[in-house]
Parts: sequence; C-alpha cells; structure tokens
Amino acid sequence: DPYLKVFTLNSNPDLTHEVTNQIGVEIGKSSIKRFKDGEIQVNIEESIRGCDVFLVQSTSEPANEHLMELLIMIDAMKRASAATINVVIPYYGYARQDRKARSREPITAKLVANLIEKAGATRVLSVDLHATQIQGFFDIPVDQLLGEPILSKHIQDKGVDDTVIVSPDHGGVVRARKMADRLKAPIAIIDKRRPEPNVSEVMNIIGDVEGKTAIIVDDIIDTAGTMTLAADALLEKGAKAVYACSTHPVLSGPAIERIENSNIQELAVTNTITLPEEKNIEKITQLSVAPLIAEAIIRVHEQTSVSTLFE
Amino acid sequence: DPYLKVFTLNSNPDLTHEVTNQIGVEIGKSSIKRFKDGEIQVNIEESIRGCDVFLVQSTSEPANEHLMELLIMIDAMKRASAATINVVIPYYGYARQDRKARSREPITAKLVANLIEKAGATRVLSVDLHATQIQGFFDIPVDQLLGEPILSKHIQDKGVDDTVIVSPDHGGVVRARKMADRLKAPIAIIDKRRPEPNVSEVMNIIGDVEGKTAIIVDDIIDTAGTMTLAADALLEKGAKAVYACSTHPVLSGPAIERIENSNIQELAVTNTITLPEEKNIEKITQLSVAPLIAEAIIRVHEQTSVSTLFE
Ligand SMILES: Nc1ncnc2c1ncn2[C@@H]1O[C@H](COP(=O)(O)O)[C@@H](O)[C@H]1O
Ligand SMILES: Nc1ncnc2c1ncn2[C@@H]1O[C@H](COP(=O)(O)O)[C@@H](O)[C@H]1O
Repeated sequence: DPYLKVFTLNSNPDLTHEVTNQIGVEIGKSSIKRFKDGEIQVNIEESIRGCDVFLVQSTSEPANEHLMELLIMIDAMKRASAATINVVIPYYGYARQDRKARSREPITAKLVANLIEKAGATRVLSVDLHATQIQGFFDIPVDQLLGEPILSKHIQDKGVDDTVIVSPDHGGVVRARKMADRLKAPIAIIDKRRPEPNVSEVMNIIGDVEGKTAIIVDDIIDTAGTMTLAADALLEKGAKAVYACSTHPVLSGPAIERIENSNIQELAVTNTITLPEEKNIEKITQLSVAPLIAEAIIRVHEQTSVSTLFE
Repeated sequence: DPYLKVFTLNSNPDLTHEVTNQIGVEIGKSSIKRFKDGEIQVNIEESIRGCDVFLVQSTSEPANEHLMELLIMIDAMKRASAATINVVIPYYGYARQDRKARSREPITAKLVANLIEKAGATRVLSVDLHATQIQGFFDIPVDQLLGEPILSKHIQDKGVDDTVIVSPDHGGVVRARKMADRLKAPIAIIDKRRPEPNVSEVMNIIGDVEGKTAIIVDDIIDTAGTMTLAADALLEKGAKAVYACSTHPVLSGPAIERIENSNIQELAVTNTITLPEEKNIEKITQLSVAPLIAEAIIRVHEQTSVSTLFE
C-alpha cells in the first residue's frame, strides 16, 4: 500500500521495526541528526505527498528531546504535504502534570497536547494515558490503546492461581478492577497513610491477601519505591508471593536496582519505553505492544473502527 | 512598581541579574527543577496576577531543554493570570532553520514561533534575529534589539583606525554595512567559492584590505571555521591586523580552541548566550546587552516606544 507510511524517531526504533514487520511495510526513510550546536536536523528521504503517515515516538526520557524531535518531524511532514499525520505516542510523557495540584503550576500535559496539535498532527494514538482526561486535552481524535489485556494474558499464561490484584494507590483502582475482572480475581488496595506529620508512612492493605499470590498493577513504574515497599507489606500480611506489572517502564534513578533487590518475583512491563541495554535486568519481562499498534495503524488507515481494540 | 516582574530560567541567570539591577527590581521568585525522570518541574513562588511579566531565556544550547523550560513557564504564567507575558529571548535558537533549503525540510524557526505563541506569550523581545523574517513568523509583537551599536562602540573605544568592516559571507553584508556606516569605514566581503566540485573552497576577498585593520562582523559565531580561515585570508591580502565581533557566541565544538589558536586578535561577543566557565578563554571579550534589555523592558512596561532603541 503506497499510501501507508510508518516512520520512526529515536525513542522506540525496535518497536517500530516490529510494527512495520507486522504490517508488512518498510520503515519510511528519514534521518534525525544534530547540528554542531545540538539543534535537531530532520530529513525525510522519500516522498510522503498524499500519504497517511504514522510517526512513532514516545515522549519518554529525555522527554524534551524526544518531544522536540516529534514536533519538528511533524512540521516537516506537514510541509511535505502528507495527507494525514498520525502520531503514535506509546508513552505520553508529562502525563502526570495533568492538573494544577498547587497554585501557579503549569498543566504540562495540556501544553504538550497543544504543541503536538499546533505542529500539525491530525490524530494521536497512545497506550494507557495516565489520566483519561488527556484525550480531552486534544481537539483532534485520540485513540487510546490498552496495555491491560497484554499484561493480563501474561499473568494467565504463567498459570498462577488464587491471585489477588493489588492497586498500589487509590488512583489505580479502576485499572486493577479491569484486570481483576478479566482474571476473575478479587482486588486489594494499598492505603498509604501518614499517621502524624513527620512520622513515616504506613502501608495499610485494604482487602484479603493471605495465602494468595498478589499481583500489583500500575500504569507507570517510575522510581519503584512504592511498589517495592508494597511488596514487603503484602508479604507481611501473608501473601504467598508478589508479582508486579505495569505498562510503562519509566524506571528512573534507583528503580532497576530496587526491583532486582526486592521481594517481587517478576515485573512485567511493555515496550512503550525502551529499556536501557547496559543494565543487568533479571526480573523484568518486557511484552510487546507492537501487535496492538500494528492493528490500530491498519484500522486507522483503512478507516475501520478501532473500538474493538479497547475490549 | 509592583506590576513589573522579571523572571529568569536557566539559560542566562547572570544577564537577568544585571537587567533587574538596572531596572531596580528583584528577580521574581521561581524555581525550575527536574522530576526523577528528567521532566521539568516549574514553580512560581509569588503572585503574578495582573502583572506585566518578563521572562528571560535564550534558546541556546541545550536548545530543546531551554525551549521546553520557556514553554512550560509561559504555560504556568498564563494559568497564574499574568496580564502580559513578555518573553525576552536574547538568542533565538533554531533561527537558521528559517526556510526550506531542500525538499521535505522543517521550518523549525517558524515552528518555535508557533509554540511560543501557543503556550501563551503575548510579546517577544529578542536581539539580532538571524533573519528579520522571523518577526513575521509571529502574530504577536516582536521587538528586535540590535547588538551592532554595542559592538561598534567597543571597536570605537579601542581607538583602532583605518579599519575595514568585513562580512564573512554575502548574507551578512547588510549587517557589515550598518557597522561600517557608524564607524565611517569601508566594507569588504569574503566570497567563498568552490572552483570545481570536490576541490576545496577558496576565499576571495572583494574590497581593499591592504594596510588596514580588518574587523569581521557576523551575527552568530558557531564553529568559527569560516571566521578563522577568513582571518588568514585577510592577512594574506595585506591586512595589518584582524579583529572579529559577533552578537551571539554559539561557539560549538572546536570553536573556542580555533579562536584561541587563530590570527584573530580579539573576538568581541555579547552575553545573549552564557559562555562556558570551565574553558580558558583569553581572546574573547563579552559585552553586556543588559542595559539594552533593561531599557526595552521599561519602555514596554510603560508602553512608550522602543523604536529609538533601534538607532
Ligand atoms: N515526572 C513526574 N515525576 C513525578 N511526579 C510527577 C511528575 N510529573 C508530575 N508529577 C506529580 O505527580 C502528581 C500527579 O500524580 P498522580 O496523582 O499519580 O496523577 C502531581 O502532584 C505532580 O506534581
Ligand atoms: N543549528 C544549525 N547549525 C548549522 N547549520 C544550520 C543550523 N540550523 C540550520 N542550519 C542550516 O543553515 C542554513 C541556513 O543558514 P544561513 O544561510 O546562514 O541562513 C540552512 O541550510 C540550514 O540547513
């Protein structure tokens, strides 16, 4: 199909390769280099006039560099007369700055939405937006794909039974509920509270975990502090074993060391964010969202519904 | 004046200090930090409701980081109900990507203008835009301040006479002409040509430099390759000595070493870009644009004309 073109930037080239293999196209020819002063230099090396262009880039760390690569490439594609510019953002960075938690804060998730639209994107595809409200930050269509079925299938395939699905905080209960429904398991919630000011937090567990295999589920795993402490609390309350899964492996700072040294048996994540290669990562299993994204791209290009991808 | 507030970001804090000292105000209280994953965290620590806010930030290297700091801070200021958000961009990065030189290139200078406007800026103040056309990329007012009078005064103060003002390329002749008029000197032009493909460039000099002190003038000094070779060519053609001046010291890669080891007596630049501290810089004199910017801020705030700053 000469009118479907998929391009990659620097955040997820391997994922894009998987996606284009599944679709049966080559990755579009482009390069993204740097001028001597560090400014981004973009080059599209084939015609895209009249094409449905799909551009894969997560705004993962380094978020600002990845975002600017994306915006500049969108600008180039717009000026090269692409028919539609569909940006596939497997991990939407800055998603946690989605509201003013205090006075005079920015709402960077909305700013980023504005920037992507202003640059010229005509559609966004993303996986597990931290807040569903982010769809409403855009005036162009946003298709949100879900990581949960991939993570749930992985758990099912392990054959563990007598599980309890654990949300690490109250904000994540809806997500845990969905997985629990699919796996026909009960849920539990970690209820972090500070009994008094300047006293360290205690981790209360709401729900029964005794004798069960606990599966902590979250959308983003960042420093892994909460998750590894939650694992300890679950074992203390009698859980038989603790597994964890999370769509987006942000894994900042000490996260990987914390996971490796923790009581968590295994952390399952997806490849919305590329894992660092140099690190020794034993406990982390990475599952691919490529089939999901490939399917979504084909449906968008053929203008058939993507809504079945949500189920 | 409680309604005039000047804030700084990370590119030019020293320049901003000079500016606020001249105006007689304190720098507005704000912080710009990083979350663990490298995302920018902005904090405005005083009310700016109803104020004329001036935000100083060059989009110099690292251009993408500096630009995102600027955009996120503008977003925060907009949501904090600033009356006007005036962004002072002493060095406007990405200015050289101001047109499609080849097919399917972005026009990043225009994209950046769109992003700044979309974020919520109401006015831009900048110094020596690489192309005057960049003013037209904005739909908000853009005041362009000129570095030339500062550089010319520096040359005058040195007391060198029998000078010739040299443009390092044909694109810079208008700039050289302006300085030559003020200094009542003739001009010369470096005419780089490649006699045949795959043969190295030769530097022709148009104009008479024999026995004169040559002053090379450019807006941006980046890798300093052209400038140092031009100095050699000028001396070969009989120039007595070579000085150089340039508003924006981008100074990428080997630039500083090249200048230090060159036949250039002195390079005068301004502080639109902060020079690296670690480096041993003997030949570079940095002149301040703070008085110019302070004056422009006062005029904008008092809604008096800034046009006299152009002369
Ligand atoms: N990159 C980030 N890393 C850690 N915390 C963040 C980040 N971005 C925003 N936040 C904070 O996370 C909180 C929102 O997180 P949540 O309650 O999980 O939606 C807000 O208080 C934000 O200030
Ligand atoms: N950051 C940069 N460093 C070096 N060259 C650049 C940069 N940005 C754009 N250019 C190129 O510089 C040329 C324009 O420079 P000029 O003719 O001086 O306006 C174009 O061909 C651009 O591709």
